[in-house]
Order: sequence, then C-alpha cells, then structure tokens
Amino acid sequence: MADISRRAALAIQSADVIAGYKPYLELIAELVDRQEIIGTGMMQEVDRCQAAVDMALKGKKVAVVSSGDPGIYGMAGLILELTMQIPEKSRPKIEVIPGISAVGAAAALLGAPLMHDFAVISLSDLLTPWEVIKKRAEMAAAADFVIALYNPKSTRRVEHIVEVQRIALQHRSGDTPVGIVRQAARDGQTVTLSTLANFTAEYIDMFSIVLIGNSQTFVRDGHMITPRGYHL
Amino acid sequence: MADISRRAALAIQSADVIAGYKPYLELIAELVDRQEIIGTGMMQEVDRCQAAVDMALKGKKVAVVSSGDPGIYGMAGLILELTMQIPEKSRPKIEVIPGISAVGAAAALLGAPLMHDFAVISLSDLLTPWEVIKKRAEMAAAADFVIALYNPKSTRRVEHIVEVQRIALQHRSGDTPVGIVRQAARDGQTVTLSTLANFTAEYIDMFSIVLIGNSQTFVRDGHMITPRGYHL
Repeated sequence: MADISRRAALAIQSADVIAGYKPYLELIAELVDRQEIIGTGMMQEVDRCQAAVDMALKGKKVAVVSSGDPGIYGMAGLILELTMQIPEKSRPKIEVIPGISAVGAAAALLGAPLMHDFAVISLSDLLTPWEVIKKRAEMAAAADFVIALYNPKSTRRVEHIVEVQRIALQHRSGDTPVGIVRQAARDGQTVTLSTLANFTAEYIDMFSIVLIGNSQTFVRDGHMITPRGYHL
Repeated sequence: MADISRRAALAIQSADVIAGYKPYLELIAELVDRQEIIGTGMMQEVDRCQAAVDMALKGKKVAVVSSGDPGIYGMAGLILELTMQIPEKSRPKIEVIPGISAVGAAAALLGAPLMHDFAVISLSDLLTPWEVIKKRAEMAAAADFVIALYNPKSTRRVEHIVEVQRIALQHRSGDTPVGIVRQAARDGQTVTLSTLANFTAEYIDMFSIVLIGNSQTFVRDGHMITPRGYHL
C-alpha cells in the first residue's frame, strides 16, 4: 500500500464497484468500504473484466485493480478491448491510471539494474507462441539489452527459463549478474542475486521477476548496478 | 503530484536535504518545508548527486528526486556508483524508492500499448555510442517488440529518430501506430497519435516519450492498444 499513488487510491475509494483478482483485493482492503466487489480467480480475467464493463454500462463507476502497472501486461488492454465491442454511443469512458510496475519495484530492490536500455519479455506461452518469445529473447540478448522476464516459470512450464539462459549465455559471460525478486513489495518478498550461469538453480515462480544484466552490469555491496556511462 | 506514491512523499517530507533538478523540485513544492535544497541544472547531475552523497556522509537524511522512476535512466545508479567510491565502513545506506515510470505514464495516456513485450531505448548518445543504440533499435524492430524511446530528439540531435523510423519501417507497416506523449502528467502535457510512416513530422523533444506499436497494435476510438492475445 505504501507504493500506491494518490490518484489510484482516490479512484478506488470513490468507485461504486471494485473488480480484481482476490489476493490483490486483499492488498487494498483499507481502501474498501461500501463498494461492491467483483472478485474472481486468476484465470477468469476475461469474465471479471466483462463483469466490470457490464457494471459500467449500468452507470456505475468501476475500479478495475491490477497489481503493478495495469498498463504493463495488466488489465488496461483487456478492458479497452472489451469496451470496443460496445456501440460507440454507449461506450463507457475509460481512464488508465498508471502504477509502479513490477519490473520497477524489482529493480529498486536490487539496486539500479535499469539505468540502461532494457527489454521486457513475458515467458508465458498461454497467449503467445513460444517461437515469438524465443526470438525476442535472442534479439534482446544479441543487442546487449538488460532483460526483464515476467512470468518466468510456472509449475507446468519449467523449460523456457532454461532455454532463455542458454540463449543469453551465447552472448554474455556466465558471471553476468542476475537478480530474482519474488513478491516484490508484498508479504514474503525475497531478493536473490545470482549469475547467468547459475540462476536457474534458484527458486523462481510466477510471482517472480528475473532481471538479467547487460555486459556492463556489476554487483557490489549487495547492489546490482548497470552503469549509465558517467565518467566518475 | 497525484501520481507520487505515499512512500516517496513520506521520504521527501522526512528528509533533512532534498536534491534534484530545479524544475522537478517545483513539482513537489507542497512537500517542501524546512528541508535544505540542493538544486542544480539538468547537465550537472554528477555534481548534484555528489553533493547529496556528501550530505549523507555528514549524517543527513537526503532525498534525491528524479522524475518518473529513479531506477529507469534516473539517479539511482549514479548515487549508488558514487557511494561505492566511499570506504565500505562509512558508506551511507541507500534506499531506492520506485516511482511511476515516464513510459508507464505515457502508455496510460495513450491507452494500452504495453500489453505485450517491449523494449525501452534511450536515443541520447551523450553516454552511449550511437552504433550500440542503433543495433538495439534494429533487434527490437526485428523481434516485433513494442518500442519505447526515451530522449528521442534534442535541438542538437535530430537525425537519430529518423534513422530509427527507417529501421522500423524495414520490419513493420507504415501504418503501425505511434504515440507521442510530451510532458506526461505535467503542465503542458500533449498526447499525439500518428503512424510509423509519418510520426517524425510531429513535434518531438527531450520531454517526449515515443511509443512504436508492434505488428498487432491498433488504434480505435482514440486509444492505442497492443492486444495481449485473448480470444474475445
């Protein structure tokens, strides 16, 4: 809650209805009072967002809650896509309120790994072919981007992260720093520093963000730092 | 100010000293009371950060203010690099407080362009060779990343953005949506929707973020949307 913006807090407090994945709604419990709740599980996001849009069509002011930034792999796009299916004259007005992204929260905990160009890639292949994801990892590694991985590993999908490691090792040294942040800014938060050669042995799950340094990234005094290039 | 987090506001209010680029300090005027101010111009960031570190060494609690997220091309890295030059036993403790990034703020104003993998590239060649930047643009374009450009154009440097346009056009259609957000969440904010073929004719400067869509990005009802891939 310390990382929520005033604008987001006010939008939630002034809403008639709040829609969100249940564990995320628990994180904002102190902002919930008389608002009606639409809470469903993680995999029912289309149904949940459709229910939110339906409430807005009835004239309610609805706050749809994402964790992190709703505009980065969040619910902003789905809500906008669903409203586009409504005839223009009755389409509800949408405001996207940005938040602190998971990658930004993870970076802050690690030190300053995003001081230089970076690529953000989700390893979830539920909605994207693995070949597309893999090509992005290859290009990002070849161009020396810092690489941030969302959804790096699930119980079902354990091989993609190893494949990304293999790809990155073709372009970067095995001692390239890798940071793993789990449950950033939530209960159970963990921050782990490892290396490109070894990081897949660490505990990684769907609540983790993995940050692979570029060729200049270093670790000192427990901080992962990608230098901007100042001559100090 | 509506987009600042509680944690950031509290850190500024409870500091003994605030250091920052002067126009950014004006944005947080309501949080400034008895704190001492270290304010310098844009190009003096090393001096400003060194002065902030020196104050911390004297035992002061210092808040260094960046716009956007201090961890994304911001002051977090420079502060950490400067403190690394201090012997470990007297090194001040650093906390990086994440914020809403300029790219996230720009994306929210445009709609939902970052629902899929994206690459963030600064076109400033002050600290990075242009050949490195250009290769990143090429790889990002080839791998169908949404591309976010920081520092896209200055009065001195007008050709890089045209070169990036040329590169992107080798991989994407000329009618690929491009969004330009100037002064996101500040006075004078402008939001412009254009296309890959035409966007360089729009007004773009160092206070702008340029977002180039991927092959699936579309514009409808004034919103720039990169679909996540749900079957609706």
